[in-house]
Amino acid sequence: MVAADNLQKTSEEAKFDLLAYLKERQKLCEIALERAIAIRYPEKIYEAMRYSLLAGGKRLRPILCLATCEMTGGTIAMALPTACAVEMIHTMSLIHDDLPAMDNDDYRRGKLTNHKVYGEDIAILAGDGLLAYAFEYVAENTKSLPGERVLQVIALLGRATGAAGLVGGQVLDLESEGKKDISLETLNFIHNHKTAALLEASVVSGGILAGCTSEDLQRLSRYSQNIGLAFQIVDDILDITATQEQLGKTAGKDQKAQKVTYPSLWGLEESRHRAQQLIEAAGAELEPFGESALPLRAIAQFITSRNH
Amino acid sequence: MVAADNLQKTSEEAKFDLLAYLKERQKLCEIALERAIAIRYPEKIYEAMRYSLLAGGKRLRPILCLATCEMTGGTIAMALPTACAVEMIHTMSLIHDDLPAMDNDDYRRGKLTNHKVYGEDIAILAGDGLLAYAFEYVAENTKSLPGERVLQVIALLGRATGAAGLVGGQVLDLESEGKKDISLETLNFIHNHKTAALLEASVVSGGILAGCTSEDLQRLSRYSQNIGLAFQIVDDILDITATQEQLGKTAGKDQKAQKVTYPSLWGLEESRHRAQQLIEAAGAELEPFGESALPLRAIAQFITSRNH
Repeated sequence: MVAADNLQKTSEEAKFDLLAYLKERQKLCEIALERAIAIRYPEKIYEAMRYSLLAGGKRLRPILCLATCEMTGGTIAMALPTACAVEMIHTMSLIHDDLPAMDNDDYRRGKLTNHKVYGEDIAILAGDGLLAYAFEYVAENTKSLPGERVLQVIALLGRATGAAGLVGGQVLDLESEGKKDISLETLNFIHNHKTAALLEASVVSGGILAGCTSEDLQRLSRYSQNIGLAFQIVDDILDITATQEQLGKTAGKDQKAQKVTYPSLWGLEESRHRAQQLIEAAGAELEPFGESALPLRAIAQFITSRNH
Repeated sequence: MVAADNLQKTSEEAKFDLLAYLKERQKLCEIALERAIAIRYPEKIYEAMRYSLLAGGKRLRPILCLATCEMTGGTIAMALPTACAVEMIHTMSLIHDDLPAMDNDDYRRGKLTNHKVYGEDIAILAGDGLLAYAFEYVAENTKSLPGERVLQVIALLGRATGAAGLVGGQVLDLESEGKKDISLETLNFIHNHKTAALLEASVVSGGILAGCTSEDLQRLSRYSQNIGLAFQIVDDILDITATQEQLGKTAGKDQKAQKVTYPSLWGLEESRHRAQQLIEAAGAELEPFGESALPLRAIAQFITSRNH
């Protein structure tokens, strides 16, 4: 029976066309994000917010949010405002991280960074504007659901963004710069906060909106922590192996900055192996959701196989 | 009857000790804010957030939020999380406005600005952390009220903070710098967004939490727009007439920067007169609330009489 089950799963997975799925969902997110922010007076700030929000990107976080909501019995309509919000928060963190006072990056997703185009002052404000709007957008546009679920999502997004999430991870990342004796514990803290926290919030909020049990929310939480860490390991690997053209941003930055990364601690082969292990652990958390977990399982696999 | 009413009102107002009221409420806010953010790992970011949040200040916005909620039949407990949140948002806007890329200020409330103590990178992140936490704090801590009211408050706070509020006002303020031909319309836009929007959100959210009718919410909205503009006019006047010691920040900055202000458009006397007119219009909006409006009426009067 186990063998037959596995055979069936493999054949189902073979039938699932992830690239077509991602392409369709990405388009859906692009349309929703494009509609979310209209240009008003004073135009410059809306243009700056849109410049970075609509600069492409994989839209992985909103796609995960929508996929989780559907997998757990909800609809796309329920989760679309939150999906847009996690992308606004993600974009805010990129704009602020790229500032001269932080990572001082000139390029992002193959385009000039926000402050290079609009100036530092407007870039700081565009980030602030996106962050505030993310919460407003969820509160205002999530319709026909119990208010408590929406409030739970807002609390989760706030936690994933602030000092207990993204912001805390970035602080430790900045403090670790130039140090060669960063421990694995510190490296994990940085990435669990800088990368995994918002991925987790994207996934778990999809489940909250659909009305998941707390046991299922815990599974979703573990799934996303695993893919979050795997995502970062692969990012570190790609910084070494991919070209600038593939990445759309400066390649080899970590090595140049002599930054401690997973490959610098474990080597490339072991890093690849551990990323694969995390993806398998993530997949195992999805067992109870059966066939409806195909997209989330395929996205997890995609994270280790991507080349940019 | 009208004369008798007025006489009675005057005697009630004489009995109301505003300074004692403000002192007691300020203390209540200080305790709540102090408890809202504990120091955790990584300590630096929590310390930076607390440094600016607990740096004193009049706590006018949270006091207005609490006073409005009580005036309209609610309790302090209902409004306290939102009161803390408006002060977190206000503090975020001060930290970011003081940055070298913006107003480049070294002192605020008589203390070194956040970036002067913690560096620009941490100051940007401390602002982001406070902003995200404000929303999380309201969503997580507002108990025993219909979720819809809390969501309405969150949407309002987001709007007052983002491009349609604080951020939009700051953008236009930065764009107007060094220009001598700023119109009254532009000046009003700047201050309606930079100052009045968050004051309005503070007041109106108190009413939303208490369950006000939409007619009453509109009165609260007009009350706060009037006091918001009066507040700014008085700020401009104090920049000319007060000393640095009284202000706790650099005095005469506007004149030095040849900034267009209300006194530069209207002169000092006319500016004082218009501020007083706005305060009277604000008071008139509170008529239906009777005696319970004493604190909000007294706060409005206080705005024009303050010397710092």
